[in-house]
Amino acid sequence: MQSDVFGNDSEIRNFLITISYNGKNYHGWQIQTNAVTVQEVFQTALENIIGDTAYSVKGCSRTDSGVHANMYCISLKMIHSIPCHRLLSALNRFLPSDISVLDIKEAEQDFHARYSCKSKQYVYKIWNAEVRNPFLDGLAYHYKFPIDVTLLNDCCKAYIGRHDFTSFCTIDNRDTNNMCRTVTDFRVERDGDMVIITVEADGFLYNMVRIMVGTLIRIAQGKFSPDCISGIIEAKDRAKAGPTAPACGLYLNKVNY
Amino acid sequence: MQSDVFGNDSEIRNFLITISYNGKNYHGWQIQTNAVTVQEVFQTALENIIGDTAYSVKGCSRTDSGVHANMYCISLKMIHSIPCHRLLSALNRFLPSDISVLDIKEAEQDFHARYSCKSKQYVYKIWNAEVRNPFLDGLAYHYKFPIDVTLLNDCCKAYIGRHDFTSFCTIDNRDTNNMCRTVTDFRVERDGDMVIITVEADGFLYNMVRIMVGTLIRIAQGKFSPDCISGIIEAKDRAKAGPTAPACGLYLNKVNY
Repeated sequence: MQSDVFGNDSEIRNFLITISYNGKNYHGWQIQTNAVTVQEVFQTALENIIGDTAYSVKGCSRTDSGVHANMYCISLKMIHSIPCHRLLSALNRFLPSDISVLDIKEAEQDFHARYSCKSKQYVYKIWNAEVRNPFLDGLAYHYKFPIDVTLLNDCCKAYIGRHDFTSFCTIDNRDTNNMCRTVTDFRVERDGDMVIITVEADGFLYNMVRIMVGTLIRIAQGKFSPDCISGIIEAKDRAKAGPTAPACGLYLNKVNY
Repeated sequence: MQSDVFGNDSEIRNFLITISYNGKNYHGWQIQTNAVTVQEVFQTALENIIGDTAYSVKGCSRTDSGVHANMYCISLKMIHSIPCHRLLSALNRFLPSDISVLDIKEAEQDFHARYSCKSKQYVYKIWNAEVRNPFLDGLAYHYKFPIDVTLLNDCCKAYIGRHDFTSFCTIDNRDTNNMCRTVTDFRVERDGDMVIITVEADGFLYNMVRIMVGTLIRIAQGKFSPDCISGIIEAKDRAKAGPTAPACGLYLNKVNY
């Protein structure tokens, strides 16, 4: 039973729980009707441990269906005496093998997994080889054609800085009037056949990383010019950017508080 | 239809096909009744391409249920005019996402994936951290307790050389009188939380790598002395060695002809 109503405020504990999950079989973090989500599975495991104790669970971000997390943070409020280390081992016992609790510690009362977050880092993985990798099904985007990593790593620097990223946001889901975000890092690197794109920002609009990656792929294909990014940002028009890259390549990699 | 009978010997082509597979959902390579195997799925894909052409498929080794292959070699004999590159792309279209064909080339008539093999290399992966890795379910053995990699890398050198490996063979399946094999390389390395054990030999007895790894884990636990391996080899007694390590950590990594 998730609830924001507690008996006695002075006894409320606030936990910062760090998990990792393989998102292949989940419709993202947030609870939905008619689809299995990480939040639902997490809360079911929690309820196995704390029974009908009232609690409140808040995740650090939504994450789309099929997106993964090397690090995902949750704040959990409840009145319960269980020590952190016992909660960690009990959750790992009740959770399925594609979700792991990495760490649990006590947080300040005003800590909130989403609103206390200062910045997040995402990683996007592209398996860039002629043939698919049988160990990466649902875990990387398979793209067969050549990718000039040096070129993309140069181009992508245009994303860095404080910009209005309207062009890089799926329009239907705009839930804010402020479309400005500060991108502090953007890198494209190669490790053998794997191309790894790393982006860090103070916040992300809906589908922002996936559209940024889709735009870089258009540059790799020669369909967009290498210096197109600044113009696309200025246009504030989703139609000017590239397509939304597949969810399976995206990993929430780090959450900074 | 798999067959060794061909119409005209002079037209028979012999292909060396290199594949990679995630063994999680397969009962090993070799065809069995009532269990899905890689060979069966491979042959079904092949028959989708060549119809009722007679063919003969030979794999380089059996591999147990749940064991993986970064590189697995097959010899395929058939009378068919399909070019290698077309056979490769067609097979990858018909095969499921956990099996990939990496390469196909024409081989000499007397080439046989199993009997022409000079040596093989296996890798065994241990996820050595307190908490499981949600991306490695079925892809590595999760072992929580400390592993002294330097110690194990010293101890394991006793495996190198030509020895009678009766102590490292599951008894029920001994299909040979010659229990001698030459181990040419044995290494234990760490890459972050992953412990990687590499072993190369001219041949392997049934469960040999997994029992060698199980014995090293006994040493890591302090249950076996660090210098036990030579004595276990000399004993020629399966009961003296450690347990058979789980199949999920084992990868056929290289096949040398």
